[in-house]
Amino acid sequence: MTSRKIIIEASGRHVHLSAKDLETLFGKGYSLTPKKYLSQPGQFLCEERVKIEGPKGFFDRSGIIGPIRAETQVELSYTDERTLGVVAPVRESGDIKDSAAMTIVGPNGKVEIKEGVIIAKRHVHLTPEDAEKFGLKDKQIIKVKVGGDRGLIFDEVVARVNPSYATAMHIDFDEANAISGVTEGEIID
Amino acid sequence: MTSRKIIIEASGRHVHLSAKDLETLFGKGYSLTPKKYLSQPGQFLCEERVKIEGPKGFFDRSGIIGPIRAETQVELSYTDERTLGVVAPVRESGDIKDSAAMTIVGPNGKVEIKEGVIIAKRHVHLTPEDAEKFGLKDKQIIKVKVGGDRGLIFDEVVARVNPSYATAMHIDFDEANAISGVTEGEIID
Repeated sequence: MTSRKIIIEASGRHVHLSAKDLETLFGKGYSLTPKKYLSQPGQFLCEERVKIEGPKGFFDRSGIIGPIRAETQVELSYTDERTLGVVAPVRESGDIKDSAAMTIVGPNGKVEIKEGVIIAKRHVHLTPEDAEKFGLKDKQIIKVKVGGDRGLIFDEVVARVNPSYATAMHIDFDEANAISGVTEGEIID
Repeated sequence: MTSRKIIIEASGRHVHLSAKDLETLFGKGYSLTPKKYLSQPGQFLCEERVKIEGPKGFFDRSGIIGPIRAETQVELSYTDERTLGVVAPVRESGDIKDSAAMTIVGPNGKVEIKEGVIIAKRHVHLTPEDAEKFGLKDKQIIKVKVGGDRGLIFDEVVARVNPSYATAMHIDFDEANAISGVTEGEIID
């Protein structure tokens, strides 16, 4: 039996910016400055930060993950939602139609997005090689078991298969705290 | 097949006080003032609040749950731990031997507890009648399935059976946020 163990990484709240919104927030012709490359190839946390504002509160220095994307997207935890007074749906990254609104403020201006704010649905990034090894298909809903004295089985985990990925499960900090920071799981279904 | 559905309630950080520590914090002969009775019979949130302090931070107005207990106990989430700079074990309520230390400050004085700080292990309170109906025994480790788009199966759930209980599952806010606040589960094992 092949091991189906997988690394679990926690993602904090962050913003992806479109080229247009990047210019509004930081000025014409601006480009993002990588501060730290992340586990997913080509993805980086930026030196730049932005303020995000909801009806009830704000976060002053939210991280931006580069490179730029086709559409601006803000990923929050349920805890963040309550601080901001925002009700965002649980969605896969990129699936932002009719998601929540937000104000984003940069040093050069501000952007009011009508949609783009989501809680990221828990997911596993897989290379095609690992997907084949694990017997999984893109978009398949799988279960991941986590051990320890706060053990649980994450249901409703989306498998996402792409040659540009590194194999890892991504959850948010609410979920990471619920398992006391355990960083390995096992795909069981 | 009997329904094995159960209400899920989230507990915030709180303090239980011994008679001795209550007097040190609030003065000789002091008694706690119920503000709101909780779902567990006889348990109440108090008008009084205390400051709890760890090496890295503090919470100014932490709730006290009465009535007084044999030993002082502080229940935190993993998120709270990191704010305070405390590393507390996951334990059942009352099992505080060699758990974490904390400073508790009241209007009349302060107490340095050497042990008593825990992360409460997720658990289900059961009346003997419901335990029998569900086919469960005291101390049994069970699984509880939660639905929705952040569905999961809580493993490592302790069943606790006592005539003084009302039947309900208790989790902390990290766990409640990880399931986006869903308030019903089903015992599946």
